Amino acid sequence: MIAENRTTKVVTTMETIDSIPTPALVINAATVRCNLKRMADYAGEHKLALRPHTKTHKSIQLARMQLELGATGLTVAKAGEAQVMAQTGADILLAYPPVDRARSDAVAQLAKKHTVRVALDSLTAAKAISSAANSAQSTVGVLVDIDAGLHRTGVQSPAAALALAQDVQRLAGLRLDGLFFYPGHVWLTGDERIAALEKVDAILRETLDLWRKSGLEARIVSGGSTPTAVDSHRVTCGNEIRPGTYVFNDINCVAAKCATLEDCAARIVCTVVSDAVPGQVVLDAGTKTLTSDKCGPAPDSGHGFIKEFPQAKITKLTEEHGQTDITQCSRAPRIGERVNVIPNHICPCVNLQDAVWWEETDGSLHKWSVDARGKLS
Amino acid sequence: MIAENRTTKVVTTMETIDSIPTPALVINAATVRCNLKRMADYAGEHKLALRPHTKTHKSIQLARMQLELGATGLTVAKAGEAQVMAQTGADILLAYPPVDRARSDAVAQLAKKHTVRVALDSLTAAKAISSAANSAQSTVGVLVDIDAGLHRTGVQSPAAALALAQDVQRLAGLRLDGLFFYPGHVWLTGDERIAALEKVDAILRETLDLWRKSGLEARIVSGGSTPTAVDSHRVTCGNEIRPGTYVFNDINCVAAKCATLEDCAARIVCTVVSDAVPGQVVLDAGTKTLTSDKCGPAPDSGHGFIKEFPQAKITKLTEEHGQTDITQCSRAPRIGERVNVIPNHICPCVNLQDAVWWEETDGSLHKWSVDARGKLS
Repeated sequence: MIAENRTTKVVTTMETIDSIPTPALVINAATVRCNLKRMADYAGEHKLALRPHTKTHKSIQLARMQLELGATGLTVAKAGEAQVMAQTGADILLAYPPVDRARSDAVAQLAKKHTVRVALDSLTAAKAISSAANSAQSTVGVLVDIDAGLHRTGVQSPAAALALAQDVQRLAGLRLDGLFFYPGHVWLTGDERIAALEKVDAILRETLDLWRKSGLEARIVSGGSTPTAVDSHRVTCGNEIRPGTYVFNDINCVAAKCATLEDCAARIVCTVVSDAVPGQVVLDAGTKTLTSDKCGPAPDSGHGFIKEFPQAKITKLTEEHGQTDITQCSRAPRIGERVNVIPNHICPCVNLQDAVWWEETDGSLHKWSVDARGKLS
Repeated sequence: MIAENRTTKVVTTMETIDSIPTPALVINAATVRCNLKRMADYAGEHKLALRPHTKTHKSIQLARMQLELGATGLTVAKAGEAQVMAQTGADILLAYPPVDRARSDAVAQLAKKHTVRVALDSLTAAKAISSAANSAQSTVGVLVDIDAGLHRTGVQSPAAALALAQDVQRLAGLRLDGLFFYPGHVWLTGDERIAALEKVDAILRETLDLWRKSGLEARIVSGGSTPTAVDSHRVTCGNEIRPGTYVFNDINCVAAKCATLEDCAARIVCTVVSDAVPGQVVLDAGTKTLTSDKCGPAPDSGHGFIKEFPQAKITKLTEEHGQTDITQCSRAPRIGERVNVIPNHICPCVNLQDAVWWEETDGSLHKWSVDARGKLS
């Protein structure tokens, strides 16, 4: 893999919101600016470094907006995304363990010219990157991934985090930079969430104490997902947050009460293509546009929210058809009519688009390439 | 939209199955050839025209293989796919109602040089295409979509099918070619399925009688999905089938008993990237590779089948992580190890790849572009 030198391709057109081919992913500029500023303000207030996860927008242009508002760097999931986002000049955190040759080599190559860090939870990954960094004659920063209770990745105890940190410290080409955790406790609210985050804080504190006693330093302690982002200051050991979805928000965020419908910046403009079946219309957005992702906190709520028809329910998706129950609507959507759908989960929807429409406050539409779309490895 | 003149980009590499970057979608050539031949033989035996739905492979090269085996033409879901698949020279059926300007114009433009048909269930769609065809000075063939019991699209009665056919007959730029139905009764098996298909046959027969009495002819009566494809001869009125998934098959097909695991030609080669959490490994394939599509007939069976670890269960997907329960496995997959996953639903997985790997019988790997990927409108 070779880093490509590219930027967001922007095409400004005379198209209007009523003429763009559907299904179209449209992003409201004013809402994005509000969302970005709100999170930047929160991070500033609590003296937390903000390293947005770019998986949501996959856009160099949007990453630049985040950096202009003070983001300390960027987060990515895959090596291919790192190559794209490094074009901003920002330093990059790969929030994913590059255990294999292709990813390790890509990361190590990128580290020759950029500050690159990876999160990992195994000696296998540490050795793979060390070997690649030695070949590339570069140095890769490492954050040790510790499980914050989601049981997806991460070492299982402070002692295991110490052992892995000592391994990293020993391996050439690596620089131990700190700790990494993923506090995506989206299913918890109120006091239960606070309690969970305080428990995470206790584990981190114990780990940092162990490191300190062994002469190891953690300059970065990085956590934060969008649903729990504004509770990040409860994890007093943390000094960096990595929310992603906050740039656009979605129905998951609304259901998790970390955003309102008005905070949802991205929508799918759809066309009603069939009304043949009584009590139903079919939208031209199926799983190839909306994905099959259900709303996490409300899995029976359907496949997105139709702004013009809040009583409608998108009950069933196939690849290109969105079957919508309209029996509760005060009027039936007409065939050919356009409606705006806020997806359950916006991140994978963006990945399905070659380009999105950026809708400025003056109503003008600008087609933006999705720069890091489809980067799998 | 302007038709692009393109073909499948094929890159032959020295990569091996152990060196390609993961997650990778690999297609076994021998299995594809068997699958294509089996369906072509069935269609030939029952004198049914075979018009494969190309949504599954989205590949000009694979479409050509289907045509070489006697396919009468190709089926697509979107106008953008029609533009790509028309490069084969085959005639094209758009199995989707183009009610809007962008789709209608694209179809009408394409019909200037190619035989193009559309399936529709509304006067709105018929008028839209008629208007576009008049502007383009072309003629578009029309199949009237009648609901075969799935209640997705399709007019609701033989009488409604007659009324719409008469409208089509009247509108300039349209040519009434026949009837269209979608017999995807995948949840029915055995006698129940046969009974359902016989019911469909009765509705079609009643419709065709009405048409005949009104002087209308249906040269094409087009049905067929992969799960019910080999029962198509039970619909005695039908003379064309449009299966798609049969080219690759998937876990949905295996669960629906229309394919065996050995008939599954496409797999995702994944890498184990974490084993930190006891009883679990994490694969580098999440929803961005496998999609969130569950197995229709067995929704609790997990997110795909790991060939090397049939006792493992991919229990939870996030975008880039496949959390896999390995507590029932006789040995644990090692971190860094590659495993092969057959997806629940292969069609949307192909759409997530810029290119797939074609694995020839000699083991050589050829990277094929996914020509019609991401065509949304």
